[in-house]
Amino acid sequence: MNNEFMNKKMIELRCSRCGKAFKPDEIVYTCDCGGILETVYDHSEVRFEGKDMWRYGDLLPIKSRTKLYVGGTPLYSFDDVNIMLKDETRNPSASLKDRASAVVVSLAKALGYKKVSCASTGNAGVSLACICASEALESYVFVPKTASRQKLAQLRAYGANVVAIDATYDECYDICNSVSKQKGLYNRNTAYNPYTIDGKKTVAFEIAEQLEFKVPSHIFVPVGDGCIISGVWKGFKDLKACGFINDMPILIGVQAEGCDPLARGKEEFEPDNGTKTKAESIAVCRPRNGFMALRDVRESGGHFVTVSDEEMFDSLKLLASKTGIFAELASASTIAAIRKEKSERRIDKKDECVAIITGSGLKDENALELLEGENATA
Amino acid sequence: MNNEFMNKKMIELRCSRCGKAFKPDEIVYTCDCGGILETVYDHSEVRFEGKDMWRYGDLLPIKSRTKLYVGGTPLYSFDDVNIMLKDETRNPSASLKDRASAVVVSLAKALGYKKVSCASTGNAGVSLACICASEALESYVFVPKTASRQKLAQLRAYGANVVAIDATYDECYDICNSVSKQKGLYNRNTAYNPYTIDGKKTVAFEIAEQLEFKVPSHIFVPVGDGCIISGVWKGFKDLKACGFINDMPILIGVQAEGCDPLARGKEEFEPDNGTKTKAESIAVCRPRNGFMALRDVRESGGHFVTVSDEEMFDSLKLLASKTGIFAELASASTIAAIRKEKSERRIDKKDECVAIITGSGLKDENALELLEGENATA
Repeated sequence: MNNEFMNKKMIELRCSRCGKAFKPDEIVYTCDCGGILETVYDHSEVRFEGKDMWRYGDLLPIKSRTKLYVGGTPLYSFDDVNIMLKDETRNPSASLKDRASAVVVSLAKALGYKKVSCASTGNAGVSLACICASEALESYVFVPKTASRQKLAQLRAYGANVVAIDATYDECYDICNSVSKQKGLYNRNTAYNPYTIDGKKTVAFEIAEQLEFKVPSHIFVPVGDGCIISGVWKGFKDLKACGFINDMPILIGVQAEGCDPLARGKEEFEPDNGTKTKAESIAVCRPRNGFMALRDVRESGGHFVTVSDEEMFDSLKLLASKTGIFAELASASTIAAIRKEKSERRIDKKDECVAIITGSGLKDENALELLEGENATA
Repeated sequence: MNNEFMNKKMIELRCSRCGKAFKPDEIVYTCDCGGILETVYDHSEVRFEGKDMWRYGDLLPIKSRTKLYVGGTPLYSFDDVNIMLKDETRNPSASLKDRASAVVVSLAKALGYKKVSCASTGNAGVSLACICASEALESYVFVPKTASRQKLAQLRAYGANVVAIDATYDECYDICNSVSKQKGLYNRNTAYNPYTIDGKKTVAFEIAEQLEFKVPSHIFVPVGDGCIISGVWKGFKDLKACGFINDMPILIGVQAEGCDPLARGKEEFEPDNGTKTKAESIAVCRPRNGFMALRDVRESGGHFVTVSDEEMFDSLKLLASKTGIFAELASASTIAAIRKEKSERRIDKKDECVAIITGSGLKDENALELLEGENATA
């Protein structure tokens, strides 16, 4: 991989499993051992300049600019619910995934690729299609047929090549990898492409800056593949290495009761009968970044919490009606988890909890149906 | 109306029809003659400070802060389509209406109201419900039963009191006015409450600032009731009175072929058989701000353009696939209008056109169905 356009402060990529180090131009995806690669930066003289996520170019693989304004989302403090909310629904395609897509699409462009692929439960694919459209690249998105119709329609509007498969997300992931290899597409797959986590870590940079580098005690993150939570951890690790912060937060990973491999401490998980959750964005049975996510949550002194679909739906309504933020079920899981942790006294009033609201309820067909059903019976 | 909390720089309210002037504490809604009131400011020593739309507090009826970050949306320049796009889908409830709701809800709070009402084709109601939820006020929203299910679900999530009526928007409007009077609700109805236009004018302030006070030649605005376009005009008038700009833009109002009263120069319009457009946000037969909108477009040297639903849908896809912005049909009408004006040579390459993308496609059931239908036949 020619790396002239890459950020010279990115010194190497290191395997999260075996520790083997690579120069950025030596490798494109995962380590020989199959391990996921992590970026390593020179943390001296890091400066933040600009407005959106590209403000953090010194700690990204490429110092770029996307046409669309990605990141720079609000962090709200709501006393009623006694938590801080990082509202990632305000991104271009209405989810946090745009941060990863922005980095990967910028790299794809610099590398001379015209086509970028990914598998997705919905949000990541929509995000890739959105950023590709704005940067004049073609996107190929592999999604389960059962993905929300809003997400499928959005994909079509963006002009993505949509491969809707009668399969789970986990199966789509493998299909995407093999098709991408065959057809020479640049592969954005999370936990395969080493740079999605770097894009996602910018959410941690923003949280820290918005709190004037006073790190919150707990951060609640919905966990599917486990890349967002590892992105958050990577962000705080980078900030600490730069000397911008002194403390590290405790990470709480949130999973659905109906699909909770990482809460069970497992990287693989064979459900009896498919996933049993309506929270499609975290309906992931084989979390591809499970190893790293388990490591990071442990390292932070945190743990996993599982919540039921009913708890997520209640929290979706609580969140919307108290704050004006309309989240998808998977994102509302963080609020459900905070309520559970409070009721079980694992967190108390003095704890400063941030919930990352990763995606919008407007794209969540299951949430819309639940809201409609409620009205019908009311 | 007690006005201690009001911005002292707002000197008076003046009737747009008869010219009668009122002190801000003398009047709540419209003039005795039925005319809509316009705000008049002291334009000396105006300063802009802060980040979101409250940056313009010196030119708003109340210098407030909403908990949610409203406005501060991106203005993009896309060479492919040779236009600038003001992306209002990035607001809290995903439409420009949040600017008006923010001002009105702040006033309602200061005035001691607990309940705020409005009639809506969808976006305005969703917006009111969103901002009310975040500010702990109750919202009452009168919408046609036929409003998009996404908007209805969003209203329910926000905990709004939803009055879904088997009636047109025009009928909902009258019902809202009489119920609000009866029940003592603070009424946000556009072209009735004098401050929605003031909220909406902040979009013009931002466009001007984002272009370093070089005013674009043309601004394309979707027109239903006509308040957004008058808000845009009011914004530029205020900026000129302050001495921030020298020129004024030409306003192009865009309506649907199936519902085009203002394009016909009429303030009222009886369609044979209801509105004939799928662009629900501009499906307004009796534009309540028609008088002012016609006046403002004329004053700007502009005119109205009508576009068909097919042209809007084509433009929705063009916009999404070239820029990553997923607009509702009504908002995509601006792109259709620019294409039409170009093909008919009323604008040319040197003209700097801004299209205001007022609302998100994610809330537009008709757009989703059209996108789904296309796939089925492909």
